[in-house]
Amino acid sequence: MNQLYVVGIGPGEYSFLTLEAERVLKDSEIIAGYTVYVNLAKRYFSDKEFIVTGMRQEKKRCHMALEAASQGKKVCVVCSGDAGVYGMAGLLMEMGMAYPTVEITVVAGITAAISGAAVLGAPLGHDFAAISLSDLMTPWEQIAKRLAAAAAADFCICLYNPASKRRSDYLHRACRILLEQQQPETICGVVRNIGREGQKRQILPLSELAAAEVDMFTTVFIGNSQTKVVRGQMVTPRGYEI
Amino acid sequence: MNQLYVVGIGPGEYSFLTLEAERVLKDSEIIAGYTVYVNLAKRYFSDKEFIVTGMRQEKKRCHMALEAASQGKKVCVVCSGDAGVYGMAGLLMEMGMAYPTVEITVVAGITAAISGAAVLGAPLGHDFAAISLSDLMTPWEQIAKRLAAAAAADFCICLYNPASKRRSDYLHRACRILLEQQQPETICGVVRNIGREGQKRQILPLSELAAAEVDMFTTVFIGNSQTKVVRGQMVTPRGYEI
Repeated sequence: MNQLYVVGIGPGEYSFLTLEAERVLKDSEIIAGYTVYVNLAKRYFSDKEFIVTGMRQEKKRCHMALEAASQGKKVCVVCSGDAGVYGMAGLLMEMGMAYPTVEITVVAGITAAISGAAVLGAPLGHDFAAISLSDLMTPWEQIAKRLAAAAAADFCICLYNPASKRRSDYLHRACRILLEQQQPETICGVVRNIGREGQKRQILPLSELAAAEVDMFTTVFIGNSQTKVVRGQMVTPRGYEI
Repeated sequence: MNQLYVVGIGPGEYSFLTLEAERVLKDSEIIAGYTVYVNLAKRYFSDKEFIVTGMRQEKKRCHMALEAASQGKKVCVVCSGDAGVYGMAGLLMEMGMAYPTVEITVVAGITAAISGAAVLGAPLGHDFAAISLSDLMTPWEQIAKRLAAAAAADFCICLYNPASKRRSDYLHRACRILLEQQQPETICGVVRNIGREGQKRQILPLSELAAAEVDMFTTVFIGNSQTKVVRGQMVTPRGYEI
């Protein structure tokens, strides 16, 4: 069998790679991915061949990677964060049906919920839900339903893709839904450029979250009813009596 | 300020550490943690001092680590998976109020939802909820409410702590709740000893999940309505048309 690896490289800085991800990248001949992430990889693995495609070119990228792997090349597809969470792993597996000689292995990475949480403190210390606000492939009604359900059951919530140029008001819409269930004082956190140059964090109440500046490089955290601020950190207690 | 690091070491094998976690562990003088995880660390960092406490000794462990850090020692508290997700980060921050000279930094790690997903394929390819079935510090009613909410909103679900000796029937109870909302054919996955010796995985329908063998080293995944099996892998599609 030919091997194809799909590798989560974490939020950006090389230091977020796992040792396994580093090994697999070093061993590969071809690194495939979205322009931005391949450029991150190029800095450290300049001796490789690269397959680079732009945004919304995911299927083309997967085809090229699977094709190269089926010809016996050692191929790595890189994703930011984790390869499975809103990443390429699932799409590669589905498209891999047409490439029966290629075996696909997922190499886990630090997804934004985890890396962003570490920047804010410990906001995901209890049960949590990860929800993407992108409606490119998911109807908004489904997103709205999940937001309402997560808020009503007092989950901590991590929002991926909270905004883009086209979707500048989506966080506002999400906040309206959350505020139907949650108190306006609920502690929230916003992290931009996690683990990259220009990293910024902000902790604020849910009542002010809609006005926060967010873009496609931002991850948003909404606490549960127990979340608090401890010495400037956002902390959701597990339940220990202190 | 004295620095104390709380470090997620991933599911077990050294290769799941991030480069940053490895650096912080190497730089530390004292490594503190639960017996099992400290023993994993001892294999690679035998030159360190160790603070080891058993299960349910979390507060004692944190006090000892904070005390050592406040005396100027370089201390690392290690957690399995990620330090923030059902880990020690939040507790350390709350207890750290009494140690104003100690600054606490979280080093992100690969939590079981991410590492277990990679073993199964790509089960968390869409919005997901992480829920712990441990009712040591959370009332069962709250857990049941979250299970029902996540299932009703068609989240993928990852269950932490699905069973212990005392709680041998909890997965059964959870499945009863899930089956009120989800089809019995819903694809599920079970992974035991993720990234360690004796790793085992199983993919099965929700109707059979209650009978699966699980213990405190097992992580359970319940797909959403779109989850399928692709060449033996559990895959939740993001929504691309293949």
